[in-house]
Amino acid sequence: MGIKIGTWSVEQVTTAFCKRAAIAHQMVNCLTEILFDEAIERARQLDKQRQEFIGGKTLPPLFGLPISIKDTFQIQGHDTSTGLACYVNAPAKEHSAIAAMLLDLGAVLYCKTNVPQTVMTGDSDNNVFGRTLNPRNASMTAGGSTGGEGALLALRGSVLGVGTDIGGSIRVPSICNGIYGMKPSAGVIPHGGTRELTVPGTDGVRSSVGPMATTIRDCALFLKSIMQTDTWKYDSNVISLPWRDLKPSKRLRIGLVEDDGFYTPVPPVRRGLKKAVDKLQQSNAVDIVPLTLPKDDGWYDDLLSYYTLMGNEYYLEQLNRTGEPLVPSVKALGLLSGEKTSLLSGQKTTLQGFFDLNVRRAEVANTYLRFFRDNNLDAILMPPAPHTALPLDNWTTVTSTGLWNYLDYPAVVVPVDVVTDSDAIDDASNAKYGHQDAELYKLYNGPEFYKGLPIAVQVVGYRHQDEALAATAGILDSIINGEEL
Amino acid sequence: MGIKIGTWSVEQVTTAFCKRAAIAHQMVNCLTEILFDEAIERARQLDKQRQEFIGGKTLPPLFGLPISIKDTFQIQGHDTSTGLACYVNAPAKEHSAIAAMLLDLGAVLYCKTNVPQTVMTGDSDNNVFGRTLNPRNASMTAGGSTGGEGALLALRGSVLGVGTDIGGSIRVPSICNGIYGMKPSAGVIPHGGTRELTVPGTDGVRSSVGPMATTIRDCALFLKSIMQTDTWKYDSNVISLPWRDLKPSKRLRIGLVEDDGFYTPVPPVRRGLKKAVDKLQQSNAVDIVPLTLPKDDGWYDDLLSYYTLMGNEYYLEQLNRTGEPLVPSVKALGLLSGEKTSLLSGQKTTLQGFFDLNVRRAEVANTYLRFFRDNNLDAILMPPAPHTALPLDNWTTVTSTGLWNYLDYPAVVVPVDVVTDSDAIDDASNAKYGHQDAELYKLYNGPEFYKGLPIAVQVVGYRHQDEALAATAGILDSIINGEEL
Repeated sequence: MGIKIGTWSVEQVTTAFCKRAAIAHQMVNCLTEILFDEAIERARQLDKQRQEFIGGKTLPPLFGLPISIKDTFQIQGHDTSTGLACYVNAPAKEHSAIAAMLLDLGAVLYCKTNVPQTVMTGDSDNNVFGRTLNPRNASMTAGGSTGGEGALLALRGSVLGVGTDIGGSIRVPSICNGIYGMKPSAGVIPHGGTRELTVPGTDGVRSSVGPMATTIRDCALFLKSIMQTDTWKYDSNVISLPWRDLKPSKRLRIGLVEDDGFYTPVPPVRRGLKKAVDKLQQSNAVDIVPLTLPKDDGWYDDLLSYYTLMGNEYYLEQLNRTGEPLVPSVKALGLLSGEKTSLLSGQKTTLQGFFDLNVRRAEVANTYLRFFRDNNLDAILMPPAPHTALPLDNWTTVTSTGLWNYLDYPAVVVPVDVVTDSDAIDDASNAKYGHQDAELYKLYNGPEFYKGLPIAVQVVGYRHQDEALAATAGILDSIINGEEL
Repeated sequence: MGIKIGTWSVEQVTTAFCKRAAIAHQMVNCLTEILFDEAIERARQLDKQRQEFIGGKTLPPLFGLPISIKDTFQIQGHDTSTGLACYVNAPAKEHSAIAAMLLDLGAVLYCKTNVPQTVMTGDSDNNVFGRTLNPRNASMTAGGSTGGEGALLALRGSVLGVGTDIGGSIRVPSICNGIYGMKPSAGVIPHGGTRELTVPGTDGVRSSVGPMATTIRDCALFLKSIMQTDTWKYDSNVISLPWRDLKPSKRLRIGLVEDDGFYTPVPPVRRGLKKAVDKLQQSNAVDIVPLTLPKDDGWYDDLLSYYTLMGNEYYLEQLNRTGEPLVPSVKALGLLSGEKTSLLSGQKTTLQGFFDLNVRRAEVANTYLRFFRDNNLDAILMPPAPHTALPLDNWTTVTSTGLWNYLDYPAVVVPVDVVTDSDAIDDASNAKYGHQDAELYKLYNGPEFYKGLPIAVQVVGYRHQDEALAATAGILDSIINGEEL
């Protein structure tokens, strides 16, 4: 912690990250609101305050640390346009809960990062700021909806960012950019004052705020810094789980799940999972238990129904205020047609329909409770998607990530490798789950197109056991990636 | 803990409570399912097991303790009729989560206790089991919906019972019977497998499971025993807050609220609150801060709307299956007329209407967050109702208790005194809040009718700070009631 002990001043560190973020932005168009001037001013104030702190008080846990945040969070005095023209030039009157909290914890906020128009696709592209490119390959998506954050972190224009995730919006860009990303249980990290584009008051599946970082340790630092503070003081809707400094199980029991039951992982993703498992099996710290997720196809349709309980009218309203055109990924989403697609149910529902969704989810939740409990699992290890980053505007399903939003389980993405020449294309007949699976499977057309793109695994914990999951993921990561650090 | 060390065998203790409960039942008709035979059989088994435990393992925290539970919880092999004829002679196939958990923690379940028809009134009266009487005065209500439990505890046919509360159903009978009752934050105590009479999948305001006991210490024991165990293993819908063995603030800061802004407390209730405050003010452990609750009349109508989001059809369906007649308190509730009453909104709503309720509640929740935080409160002290137990079938409003269900704050009822000859009737013109207030106020027609009925105060904590509230209530109780123990 060179900042805390004064090896580098906060101003030096902040200036360095501002410069690095500026370079990243020029390369991949990852930023939205740029707050360098006020960040450096705050840094100077923190440097002055450090003198006082050293006299007696302890420095706050994130003292002097530059943190980047997704555009959907409000920072007083700056836009929260979230890639929609109708919200441009309307500076926020107050901070989002998480922004206020990070500042109280000593952080420096220096930029906000790009998202998709409507915040509902896997491509961070909109008419206000344009498209964020994948730093490793400009013909591939940087992911979404927290895609600007992912690209900025990949280029080390940030070491710790904050996103939101209601189906994969932290985890998808973490996969695409080879970084660590954690979706906590909903409400554990304050979500108040985030600009959501769904109908106000919508309930059912809630968006989670969580960290994205270049190490799992930084994700855990974020989680600990927030959870050990009084989150309830920042947001009336939090689940105030305390940080407990838990000791992880002596020997972890990890359920190995090869696919989500909808889509077959393509060759590099299978290889990445196998590589991770091989290393874990050589360790004394882990037992690997091969498992198949409980069979239930209906949950994914129900998740899509939860996303647009009131149909598309509210989205339409926001788009129609300026008449802006749709970007390709939103057009592909079918948001405005009201059709059923792989990311939308296409139908609004009634109150009874909403209750029916709740009843079905309670049944699925009971099934998964038994699955987790009766297998005595510390975590599930599985692919976070059946593929790596995809060509632009092709990421259309979230079956591997969305399940954990539907059930409100915390989940972490851990990078394990990159696509290499060894990852030969294989026949679409290897896709186990029918036509749609085969179509997605065929998108992997060989290492000549995908080489160098990150491969990741997903580590899933039980609901509200976020701290335990962070510890478990840390141990797994140290075994999988340890010797390469 | 005479049971644990073997001063008395579990069988002796269980038999004693079965006998005492039998006497109580003959006096006030407080039981529904009577499980004495199987309780004594289990007691014998526990006595055998104790020998093994003493060899090495620690005894579970509720070892050998007889616990009574509300009829709405399922015990395998016994009815969960909840006072409705349509559910008679349909033995439960499995335990409710809390029943299973209590048994795993070593408890002995020996009886279930009476509730109102529909579980939605303040009078525990139904066509299956009849009416539970108030042990102190048979012309007064024993309260509801956990009224059988309250009466059983008042007669020491139990020392620890379990109820549910979605508007006051633990706290109202605690007032009426002069016992301690705690409504935790929803989900902290497992609620799975409880028979609710609302439409399955209903969300918005959730019922809480909580303890009722003859001391605050026993309420805290219940809370601790549950929270220190893995609640998540019993119910997929819990909020898994861990027990932390918190140390309470050195000096407690208590917001004193004289009324709920809807109804004026009658003379004995005012005297009870004053008595409590006088004692607290003499203590070095407490600062009393007089406050008025934030002004917002709309929340109560919204709470009533949450109760019957789908109108009355589901209730009608259950009643119509047998054609059973309504008991007087349900008739007064207006459940079947669809009219707006003091406990029902009278209207079903739409999904948009439900979202609107959520938006308004989020605003109220933010107001109360500021109220609690900016006043730096450990708890609020206020009357749990504007009156004591009332004449039969007259308890029709829950403004003082329901607010904390609406906001999901934990709240404890603490008895402080009983009505005495000194509690003279005063003029209805003292009712501050208009006509309805005056009507309710006039129900107090002097000590000749109310003498000996308990007076209680309510201690309210912040959402999810259930453990802290239990500790705070314990300290307040020791100051208020200490010297009389």
